Amino acid sequence: MREDNFRKLDPYVPGIQPAFADMIKLNTNESPYPPSPKVIEASERFNAADLRLYPSVDVGPIRDALAEYHGFDRSCVFVGVGSDDVLATIFQACFNSGRPVMFPEITYSFYEVWARLYNISVKKIPLRPDFTINADDYCGVENGGVVIANPNAPTSIAMEKGDIEMIIRSNPENVVVIDEAYIDFGGESVLDCVPKYDNLIVVRTFSKSRSLAGARIGYCVANPELINVIETVRNSINSYTNNRPAIEMGVASVKDEEYFRAMLAKVIATRERLAKELRALGFTVLPSSANFVFATPPAPLTAAEVYDRLAEKHIFVRHFKIPGIDNYLRITVGTDDQVDTMLAEVKKLI
Amino acid sequence: MREDNFRKLDPYVPGIQPAFADMIKLNTNESPYPPSPKVIEASERFNAADLRLYPSVDVGPIRDALAEYHGFDRSCVFVGVGSDDVLATIFQACFNSGRPVMFPEITYSFYEVWARLYNISVKKIPLRPDFTINADDYCGVENGGVVIANPNAPTSIAMEKGDIEMIIRSNPENVVVIDEAYIDFGGESVLDCVPKYDNLIVVRTFSKSRSLAGARIGYCVANPELINVIETVRNSINSYTNNRPAIEMGVASVKDEEYFRAMLAKVIATRERLAKELRALGFTVLPSSANFVFATPPAPLTAAEVYDRLAEKHIFVRHFKIPGIDNYLRITVGTDDQVDTMLAEVKKLI
Repeated sequence: MREDNFRKLDPYVPGIQPAFADMIKLNTNESPYPPSPKVIEASERFNAADLRLYPSVDVGPIRDALAEYHGFDRSCVFVGVGSDDVLATIFQACFNSGRPVMFPEITYSFYEVWARLYNISVKKIPLRPDFTINADDYCGVENGGVVIANPNAPTSIAMEKGDIEMIIRSNPENVVVIDEAYIDFGGESVLDCVPKYDNLIVVRTFSKSRSLAGARIGYCVANPELINVIETVRNSINSYTNNRPAIEMGVASVKDEEYFRAMLAKVIATRERLAKELRALGFTVLPSSANFVFATPPAPLTAAEVYDRLAEKHIFVRHFKIPGIDNYLRITVGTDDQVDTMLAEVKKLI
Repeated sequence: MREDNFRKLDPYVPGIQPAFADMIKLNTNESPYPPSPKVIEASERFNAADLRLYPSVDVGPIRDALAEYHGFDRSCVFVGVGSDDVLATIFQACFNSGRPVMFPEITYSFYEVWARLYNISVKKIPLRPDFTINADDYCGVENGGVVIANPNAPTSIAMEKGDIEMIIRSNPENVVVIDEAYIDFGGESVLDCVPKYDNLIVVRTFSKSRSLAGARIGYCVANPELINVIETVRNSINSYTNNRPAIEMGVASVKDEEYFRAMLAKVIATRERLAKELRALGFTVLPSSANFVFATPPAPLTAAEVYDRLAEKHIFVRHFKIPGIDNYLRITVGTDDQVDTMLAEVKKLI
């Protein structure tokens, strides 16, 4: 066959999904807690006979539930198969000018993969030495769009809301995407800014704070004109995306605010303890507003050594072999027990 | 905002999804029968607590089940969120040469939407006056790929296997996609030709013959090199697509061959009766190998009139306002009762 038929790409590499019965899985930022009991009930109540019918073509029930939850009109909400699907669709729909899209040099590595996939040129902006984002770098620069993860990944650091608003205001001609995958664990959302700025898209996911990674639900909120552009691209790819179980369980999750808040509080409390104990062991831990910490061990111990030792014990954390962060580990906040087991292993290495 | 940021597209328009309690829905080629009792059991057994974890990154369990079912290695199978997702990914992965992709002028209208989305030039080949595909039209012509739906939609007509093989053999340098969404209802599959031709991709769906439209599962079978190209593009968009419920229910469906065969037999028997009765009323009905019939009413009655009258009675069929087929209706094969109710209304118009 002719080779020019085929796309050649370097895809995103997700965290490995090991399968040991005794493993402690702190490598893909999943919640250590199950989804809301209302989700479990929705699953038990689910009528599988209805699977013969297509799901709602615009993922209507989740859209309505989220619109009500956040206080927007449904025309401001777009729902996809995880926030990766939502973000990929935004890249395809909103970054077509030929001018480069700007994002931090160290951030969610899928941004660059989508840019390459859709032939979007990229301008990567270095972080400050302390791994924070300098908002000024994104203002007054010719570009075709901006993408900021807040809190940023894998650094875990949140930006000031005022800095984010400055970036949005400084780029009135282009779309500014704020990826709030981890915002429920800390930092200040700009969701309330959507009515103020017609160029703002806020992206969220059910995979982290709603304990629904296995259901594949993500969404974004923006003004209806932007949502319409995104939806048109989506409807040019696949008319029906989120399936019937995802829709029913997603709606149930949105309806249980109390459980949602309780699980967030638990994760945040464990995160603070984890950061404190790692620091006591000599680690440098970046200030986390997420459901993970980003930490580097005290010399001469290296991140690779800690990673290997933990993996031997079937404790999986994430180690990115990327220059600048290759001596850091991204550790998902587990249950208190999981964190204690992990810390006990780390102590043996010190 | 600058308008050049945004993609402007004419998306695919799916059949309307009306929601009347008393409706008879014969407009989107869903099965009138529920999925296998094994799927219902899998749903009841589903452990929603596991939703906190990402699903299998390569949709492993369905892949394995399908590989075993069809007698291929798992490296020959790719699974997506419905066959639309699979086909969209194939268009993006395999049709990048700049040469036009060929498909019939009257076929699944999403093919042209994907081509436009991915900037693929298109060469549409007219059908014969009897709505059949002339295989010779696809042989010995410079192109960048071929897509054939077999049976074709919305005509319902299947091609001879020998003709399809001729097209595959005549285009050794390019990918030939055979979209077998409806093959279980008639026609002869070319799945067994996959080991013979390295340029063949056979696409299937769980939405029609497996009564799982609401679960969103589609797949394709091809040689491992082609699957790898498709998978690389998919992994550049979204690492986790089919969710946990879809994977468990999909596997359960594949494991119940007896129920699958029994439901196919029922649909086929009803289809034959439906076609016969429509012909008795003076309709011209194309020879169907699918779970729908494509039929035109006796003059002076028009398809639009029949459509409107049925819709008034909350009986929904599909009417494409496309030149050449705008006096035809695509009628999904329902239960015997649904078909009788529909026929009774049609009789009143004759």
